[in-house]
Formats: sequence, structure tokens, C-alpha cells
Amino acid sequence: MSARNFIKSGRKIVAIGRNFSEHAKELGNAVPTAPFFFLKPTSSYVASPGKIEIPKGCVVHHEVELGVVIGKGGRDIQAANASEHIAGYALALDLTARNLQDEAKKKGLPWSAAKGFDTFTPVGPFIPASDIPNPHNVRLWIKVAGQLRQNGVTDAMIFQVPQLIEHVSRVMTLEEGDLVLTGTPKGVGPIEPGEQVVAGLEYQGAELSRIEFSAVARD
Amino acid sequence: MSARNFIKSGRKIVAIGRNFSEHAKELGNAVPTAPFFFLKPTSSYVASPGKIEIPKGCVVHHEVELGVVIGKGGRDIQAANASEHIAGYALALDLTARNLQDEAKKKGLPWSAAKGFDTFTPVGPFIPASDIPNPHNVRLWIKVAGQLRQNGVTDAMIFQVPQLIEHVSRVMTLEEGDLVLTGTPKGVGPIEPGEQVVAGLEYQGAELSRIEFSAVARD
Ligand SMILES: [Mg+2]
Ligand SMILES: [Mg+2]
Ligand SMILES: [Mg+2]
Repeated sequence: MSARNFIKSGRKIVAIGRNFSEHAKELGNAVPTAPFFFLKPTSSYVASPGKIEIPKGCVVHHEVELGVVIGKGGRDIQAANASEHIAGYALALDLTARNLQDEAKKKGLPWSAAKGFDTFTPVGPFIPASDIPNPHNVRLWIKVAGQLRQNGVTDAMIFQVPQLIEHVSRVMTLEEGDLVLTGTPKGVGPIEPGEQVVAGLEYQGAELSRIEFSAVARD
Repeated sequence: MSARNFIKSGRKIVAIGRNFSEHAKELGNAVPTAPFFFLKPTSSYVASPGKIEIPKGCVVHHEVELGVVIGKGGRDIQAANASEHIAGYALALDLTARNLQDEAKKKGLPWSAAKGFDTFTPVGPFIPASDIPNPHNVRLWIKVAGQLRQNGVTDAMIFQVPQLIEHVSRVMTLEEGDLVLTGTPKGVGPIEPGEQVVAGLEYQGAELSRIEFSAVARD
């Protein structure tokens, strides 16, 4: 068990919703006044390079996100101590069956299926925390079929990483290898079978991660 | 890694909602026409005997449930083959912060916090599948502070175990050690700090599992 190996050994993925105002607005949602989160299953991980499956009947949206990989576990972690619990980062996509999510939201039902299909958490390799001294100065971008769709900087987060760790760990213990997805900038949109998906993570102008996936239809 | 050891090594808990009509009705919900599910984090496990934490400000309801422990993993598992994937069972409680869940339902937000606090999945030891040849003939009961609250038989499930496994595994791969919670009979209600919680699982009149927890306040 190690944080570096989080794709194989991690036990949970906690994903923050609507943490960038422009993204909350583009989906017609209110900007949150407190963080909220949902769980994705670790069975949804797929490592880069790989295949993204588009299940039949699903409108699958990309959400490019900064993933925080937990090192030392803990609960009731104070924001001021959060950095001691961060082993590193990873570039990730929080794929979402938007039509199923819209239906769930209307009915007051859980988001778990809409967010949890196999291959719905494409992810890049572990980046040690020392390579990203400031997680709020990270550029995230994604191209679908050669077209730039999202391109944002994590300084626009409504709730910053230490607050997110404090918030989540007040509810559930964070363990080594857990991944916290920190929300997506504006520009989400559909991925169709046959399209190529490329995303990047840059810190101070240097590309620290690039991931590549091809989208395929799933019956 | 083994199914027997699911509390320590399992990677997900998939919980079915409203799978007993009388329970759906007691909360004012429609009886579902298709199964639906949500995820609980494995960090919410607590083994019997143990302590259930009641977080400040939460109205915590008990839901006694039959847990199915996955042996051989798989995806797109057919109902007809589901039994090959079941290693065993466990008696479990799906604890729920009902006030937070009600609020989430109203706002169309995820159930993950309401269902995911530490100690919100109290569980008993692994029961080999051979001890329960028919999972739809299991009696589940729970007493809180000496009072019988729930007492139902799994023959009243709306969707039976093989259908649940087919449904979940069409969305997400099931892996060895995953736990599927199959829904709760009527009679859910609050647990207060200081109360003792005892639950049992019976098969053909024989008690196969009994679990005991004391509820304590958590700040
Ligand atoms: Mg999990
Ligand atoms: Mg997201
Ligand atoms: Mg339940």
C-alpha cells in the first residue's frame, strides 16, 4: 500500500461538486456556500493511455480536475494541517453521465450510477507533492477531438484544497491512497465514441502530466 | 485479499435503496420500478462489537440489511449466474443521517455525506454462502434500547439478490470483497447516544449472526 500506487490500492474517491463558480453557473446551479461531495467507486479508474467507455444511452461529459492523493490518513483534519496529509496529486477526469445525473437530481436520487460507470475516472500518474508547492496555481486543460474545451487555473476554486480536506475528513476518515477530486472549471461537454481525449496539467508553465484516452461505445 | 476479510480489504459498498415496499412507503417515497443504489465508503465500517457514533446535529436512523459479499468479481453479470459471484453474506446496518438525506433529496444533491460518516456501516462477521442456500428466506431484526424496531424477512424484497447483482454490475465492475447492501424492511427510526443496538440474522430459525453496538455522541 502506498499513495504512489493509489489507482491499484486506493479505497475511495471523494469528488467535490461545483467548486468553480463559472462551472456551477454553466449547468444552471447555484454557487455553493459550503462544499459538498459525492463518492466514485475505485472500479471506475482507468490509467492513461487507455479507453473511455461511453455506455449506451448516456450523454457522457468530461470534467477535468486536480486530484489530491492522500498520504497520511486522518479524520477531523484541520485546514491548517492539511498539507501534512497530501502525498501528491494526479490529473483526473470526473466523467459524468449528465442525462442520468439530471434525472437523479430531479428525483432526489443518488448520483452514484451517473458518476460511477467503469472507466469514468480516467487518471494520470502520481505527481509528488514537492512538484506542486502551490495546488492553487495549476492549469488544467482538456481537448476533445482536437478542440480545446476546458482551460482553467485552480486559483478560481471556491473552496481551496485545505478546506476541502477539512470538510471531507469531518465526515469520513481519509486513508492513504484515497483521491480527492477538487472540482472542474467551466467548459464541460460531451465526449462521443470515436473521439480522442487529451488533457494536461501545468505548473508554472511546465507540463507535469498529460493523459490520453480514446472513447469507445459500450453496449 | 479475500472475501472473508471484506471489512479490511473491500474496496466498495454498494447499497440498494427502497427495496422493501413497506419501507419505501413509511418514508413517503414511491415504490421503485427499477433498482437504484448509492455508495458508502469502506471507512464507514465498524465491526461488532463496537461503537456507533452519532454526529452532532444528525438524526441517525438504523436500517438493518442483508449484506452480500462478492467473491469472484465481474461485470455485466447475468442474474442467472449471480450466485457464482457470491462468497457469502453479512449482517449489516446502513446508518443514515436522515435529516441530511432529506435535505440532499430536496436540493438534488448527493447522499454520500448522509450515508458516509465514520461508523455508519456496522457489520457482523462473514457468513459463508453455503450457510444461507436461499438469501430470500432470511429474517433480519434490530432492537434499540431493548425495543424491537425492525423484524422482516428478505422474501419481501422488491428486486431479488440476483437482479441486484445484474443491475449494479452493468454500471460498475464488482470486485472480490465488495459488499452489496440489499435494502431494509420497514421500521427504521432514530438511535440516540447512550442507547444499545442489537441486531440478528436468522435462517430457518437458527441465529447465524448477532451484532452489538453502543451509540455514543460525536462532536
Ligand atoms: Mg469506495
Ligand atoms: Mg466533477
Ligand atoms: Mg439502506
